Amino acid sequence: MVAADWLDEPRIYIENLRGRDPAYLVTEEAVLKALEPVCQTPRLTCRFSDERDMDAWRQADILIAGRLDTASIAAEAKSLKLIQCTSAGVENYAPFDWLPAAITLTNASGVHAVKVGEFGLMAVLMLHEGVPAIATNQRRHIWNRQLQGLSGNRRVLIYGVGALGGAVAERLKSIGFRIAGVSRSGKPHVAVDRMTTPDRFHDELRQADILILACPLTPETRGLIGRQELAALPEGASLLNIARAGVIDHAALASFLRSGHLSGAILDVFEQEPLPAGSSLWDLPNLMIFPHVSADAPDGYVDRCLAILSENLVRSKAGWSLRNVVDPQQGY
Amino acid sequence: MVAADWLDEPRIYIENLRGRDPAYLVTEEAVLKALEPVCQTPRLTCRFSDERDMDAWRQADILIAGRLDTASIAAEAKSLKLIQCTSAGVENYAPFDWLPAAITLTNASGVHAVKVGEFGLMAVLMLHEGVPAIATNQRRHIWNRQLQGLSGNRRVLIYGVGALGGAVAERLKSIGFRIAGVSRSGKPHVAVDRMTTPDRFHDELRQADILILACPLTPETRGLIGRQELAALPEGASLLNIARAGVIDHAALASFLRSGHLSGAILDVFEQEPLPAGSSLWDLPNLMIFPHVSADAPDGYVDRCLAILSENLVRSKAGWSLRNVVDPQQGY
Repeated sequence: MVAADWLDEPRIYIENLRGRDPAYLVTEEAVLKALEPVCQTPRLTCRFSDERDMDAWRQADILIAGRLDTASIAAEAKSLKLIQCTSAGVENYAPFDWLPAAITLTNASGVHAVKVGEFGLMAVLMLHEGVPAIATNQRRHIWNRQLQGLSGNRRVLIYGVGALGGAVAERLKSIGFRIAGVSRSGKPHVAVDRMTTPDRFHDELRQADILILACPLTPETRGLIGRQELAALPEGASLLNIARAGVIDHAALASFLRSGHLSGAILDVFEQEPLPAGSSLWDLPNLMIFPHVSADAPDGYVDRCLAILSENLVRSKAGWSLRNVVDPQQGY
Repeated sequence: MVAADWLDEPRIYIENLRGRDPAYLVTEEAVLKALEPVCQTPRLTCRFSDERDMDAWRQADILIAGRLDTASIAAEAKSLKLIQCTSAGVENYAPFDWLPAAITLTNASGVHAVKVGEFGLMAVLMLHEGVPAIATNQRRHIWNRQLQGLSGNRRVLIYGVGALGGAVAERLKSIGFRIAGVSRSGKPHVAVDRMTTPDRFHDELRQADILILACPLTPETRGLIGRQELAALPEGASLLNIARAGVIDHAALASFLRSGHLSGAILDVFEQEPLPAGSSLWDLPNLMIFPHVSADAPDGYVDRCLAILSENLVRSKAGWSLRNVVDPQQGY
């Protein structure tokens, strides 16, 4: 919980990465505009990470940053109460033993919802229509007309019904797909017809035509999808990964695509990005490679991140719990 | 207009094509079921076209067929009052001077609406996301991360807002795209933000990010899209053809894809189908080839066709005008 005495004139340190796409640059103007309704006189310092102002760093109450220098935060930033990370995934900073108990870490989860909803809808319609196979056939000059039915007859299973998975579920539901979901809590979701928990995952796999991976990467989800899980999917099922590469065993995926047990797959995330030109994934049959574009819409990204911070300052003043707080135990 | 005296016990001739996908086979059972609420005792003949029953053919009041033997209809089927064609496009039978004035020809327009709406939504999301370029890059092992914005900022132009174009417009509208439409009448459509007529087409092209061709092939639309029209589109625009191949000059399309003026295209229709393995279209950059799958969903196709016939028999008895009547002058 954030203390309330520093909230009227917070010292805010903004750290940007040099060379990053300007769409992700957090400017003083954007912060002033976002916080104007909440605090009149924030004291801002805005620097690239390679020109850090150590005095301001040590005195800052709030840090806004895309990449976290965890060692320096722990050792130097002794005044920090709140970190707003402008990335949704914070798995690179686990374990969180570097994070002092006095600091609340919030992420940008939810900022990607609209974009990922549109991307997920597109990708699932593509898997439904067999586009990965159609694209593979095109490379070989093969016309193979396989008519597909209507989306209402397709069963989609979403592993991870958080900000990403939930946004995809809402888009899919509006089109007519039948949707099951797996989440840690198993809590009902308005767009999911049947919610369940990870212990029932294998039963759900047997009833899924299209599997969507949308969970955070944690010790529990690393290697989630291997040979056993792919074998549990019905013949002809397909798969979309918008989570992290580490949730899938790519050797198993390759083998099930080659055998035809999987009719197609779409991957948007890879262990190494950019995917090296020599990777064997590029030429796998019925696999489509996307260059990590599922969740980032440049228009308004920073404003959506800062809206989380602004709302959290309002909540702090009112003594409410904050949004988007990272739980150091769960890792997201 | 269909006369009313033969409607209680119509003689119905069903002609199927041998070897066609069973999903398109019109069976006696399906016809009896569809017409049961309308006429109790239809007299049915059901044959493949290579085993035609000429006596029944000559006496039939109603013909249900996927392909029309226009010469034999004109010369022999002297009792016919109504033809229900189970195809939506009837351009192969133009000009319609073979069609006796006493026969009403109805098509299957609208039967494809749900499927084409889903396909069109997928294809437009793919063009929005730059998937044709991403697939071309994949063939070359190239990772080129180009982030795209949200659909609400994209302007879509639909040429032909009939059964197909209208169904696509409805799906796109529900996602958030900005939609303009061109139709012969320019009549407002609930899902189109701005409707206009063909004489304003060039002005509309200048404001279109994504152009969808969804018109029937007629003398007016043959060659609709050539060099001039592609040049009028903004740099980076893209194109979807779910109409007929004849509406586009493919040499012009190839040149504008190669130059990069068009960022991508998706074609589902070709002059010759299957597209020959030697066609130069297969390897064009930023073009995706679909094997004519945009509008046909096998589940329930025949039932949806027969529902048109059933409704038209009800309308005939009541003296109302019929649905889906082909206008021999307009050709659809």
